[in-house]
Amino acid sequence: MVGLLDYFRSAAGAQKGSASVAKERLQILVAHDRAARGRPSYLPKLEQEILAVIRKYVEVDTDAVSVTYEQEESHEILELNIVLPESSARS
Amino acid sequence: MVGLLDYFRSAAGAQKGSASVAKERLQILVAHDRAARGRPSYLPKLEQEILAVIRKYVEVDTDAVSVTYEQEESHEILELNIVLPESSARS
Repeated sequence: MVGLLDYFRSAAGAQKGSASVAKERLQILVAHDRAARGRPSYLPKLEQEILAVIRKYVEVDTDAVSVTYEQEESHEILELNIVLPESSARS
Repeated sequence: MVGLLDYFRSAAGAQKGSASVAKERLQILVAHDRAARGRPSYLPKLEQEILAVIRKYVEVDTDAVSVTYEQEESHEILELNIVLPESSARS
């Protein structure tokens, strides 16, 4: 999975100028390459715990979170997309 | 940042067959598009908290974690790459 950071960087760069109103967003990806299969996944549990950690720092509406979870034979991916409200930082 | 999941998927697919010994890996990416600049970042703090959450589910050696943090004007990205030991699941 080398090169993911480059991909992220270019995707962020490509968005410049495309939106006149910048929204504050947070995107979290967790990818698990599983050598041992058939074991129950902990990623769905991680999802709630990661959200709880993020809520310590910024306000997150439940409506503002979109979650994608994908499980295949050898890997699984959890994706969280969060649109943050303006002035979302906790003091 | 649409399409990141597709990228992840193809990268994972491309690795099939390239390694005879599959290692168990966990990769976490946190990307923050910042509308309001100049505010202190909480991503470095998130890093430790996310690791603490993951350690509830799997054993993680400090040596096995590689961290990349990149901050630019309008976005910042935190990347954690973790190589999990065999039989890493906590009972």
